[in-house]
Amino acid sequence: MSTPASQPVGLICGGGALPFAAADALIARGVQPVLMALNGFADAQRVAHYRHHWVAIGQFGRNVSLLRNEGCREVVFIGSLVRPSLKDVRFDLKTLFVLPKIIAAFRGGDDHLLTHIARIFEDEGFVMRGLHEIVPEFLLPQGHLTNIAPDESACADIAKGLAALASMAPHDIGQAVVVIDRNIVAVEGIEGTDAMLARVANLRKEGRLRSQTGRGVLVKAPKTQQDLRFDMPSLGPRTIEHVAQAGLVGLAAIAGHTLLVESQTTIALADRARLFFEGVDAVALSSTNPS
Amino acid sequence: MSTPASQPVGLICGGGALPFAAADALIARGVQPVLMALNGFADAQRVAHYRHHWVAIGQFGRNVSLLRNEGCREVVFIGSLVRPSLKDVRFDLKTLFVLPKIIAAFRGGDDHLLTHIARIFEDEGFVMRGLHEIVPEFLLPQGHLTNIAPDESACADIAKGLAALASMAPHDIGQAVVVIDRNIVAVEGIEGTDAMLARVANLRKEGRLRSQTGRGVLVKAPKTQQDLRFDMPSLGPRTIEHVAQAGLVGLAAIAGHTLLVESQTTIALADRARLFFEGVDAVALSSTNPS
Repeated sequence: MSTPASQPVGLICGGGALPFAAADALIARGVQPVLMALNGFADAQRVAHYRHHWVAIGQFGRNVSLLRNEGCREVVFIGSLVRPSLKDVRFDLKTLFVLPKIIAAFRGGDDHLLTHIARIFEDEGFVMRGLHEIVPEFLLPQGHLTNIAPDESACADIAKGLAALASMAPHDIGQAVVVIDRNIVAVEGIEGTDAMLARVANLRKEGRLRSQTGRGVLVKAPKTQQDLRFDMPSLGPRTIEHVAQAGLVGLAAIAGHTLLVESQTTIALADRARLFFEGVDAVALSSTNPS
Repeated sequence: MSTPASQPVGLICGGGALPFAAADALIARGVQPVLMALNGFADAQRVAHYRHHWVAIGQFGRNVSLLRNEGCREVVFIGSLVRPSLKDVRFDLKTLFVLPKIIAAFRGGDDHLLTHIARIFEDEGFVMRGLHEIVPEFLLPQGHLTNIAPDESACADIAKGLAALASMAPHDIGQAVVVIDRNIVAVEGIEGTDAMLARVANLRKEGRLRSQTGRGVLVKAPKTQQDLRFDMPSLGPRTIEHVAQAGLVGLAAIAGHTLLVESQTTIALADRARLFFEGVDAVALSSTNPS
């Protein structure tokens, strides 16, 4: 959190608009971002507007010396390489970051790959930050974000979802569930939130979901042992589209522990789709009685 | 369980081979089955070999009087209308069993619809049985069912799956998970086990699953509050095909609490696919430490 204005921050940039949103936010605060743009992922046109270097995934040495030359001590992984489909990334990174210690880390399971990669950066003297640390304004705020607030039934669905996620968290199971009329209809595995919502939309099309559209919620929460620096739950415009297509009435996520990408667009989309969007107090998750 | 040989048993028959397997098993034991064959579901050619009546879904009155005339006191719902895709059934039944008390029951959520329908039969003096009560030989036995037994890694995956299912059970969440190298990759929602396994096969095709094929297990267990008479986890040849297609190394389910449909075919298929198939002691589930 201590980001002296004199020290530039290194952003290792994947695809999407998020790196530029983060860079703009840093600049607005008087912090110089240095984009390490990943070949094949980062948007070249937009990268050109910022102080940047092009690097390939796996060019660990080049990354390190460029970041050092730029005087960056704090470094962030950012962009669609790591978010929202973290698993894809890990696959790509694995093939190129072939350092023996990463390979060894892999053997133990693949849940904490970026944590291991981060450790290698840290061994070189860098401080790895989460996006939420350098741009806290990207965090989901608490309360009703939309014109519509959840009604009593939706609140009960949210509570049911939070309770279920709380009991699953120790097992490192998915970050999200869909709850309709107190029934847990879908649980997120490694497929991701959007794929889970698409599944619900399909079940509805096939007549497997008897409830009317306009019922049920998406509930999202971080897993207990999640390293929020690299795998924070994130929501954005696409989530809203999927929630609407799944025929749900709204969504809820943990305030302060969820990245809200393109917050204005996202909330406007939710309002237009007549969905509610709720930032839930983190205490609600930890105080949830798992039965 | 008390099935006096003198009293015939009513089988309300949906599709698939299961009703006939059950009828044969009853006959072998000297019990007369009476098939109430559901129009559009039961296999007419095979029905013809048994004492039977054709009924339409929703002909509750006709069902009751026929069963009474036949002297059946014990009645079982059986066949692919209710299993394996229970949700489909409920949908169909809902449209036709329009009795107000069922409609009322529906309002409270749809998890126990068959329990409510059963109650209506019970109000008429019938005793509703589960398939496991009238043909206990259809229950999954305990131990190694296949030539291959789970290795240490697979046993750890089974334990992880059982622990996760145990913590989810109070929330009435899916009956199954896929665990690969201690990671829970997929959780069953209302889509059913086969659809979940198809999802895992897809994730593998898309490169989202980095583990080699021939790793990981399907773990299946009944939910805590499940009425085993109407919604017992069931496994059969199709499950094995899906497990193989998902690139897993085997499957485990709770002995005595899982229906094993066409057991010889199923086990032979598993052997041919070089999968293990494990009947787990129910104690393993209840003694599982959910963290």
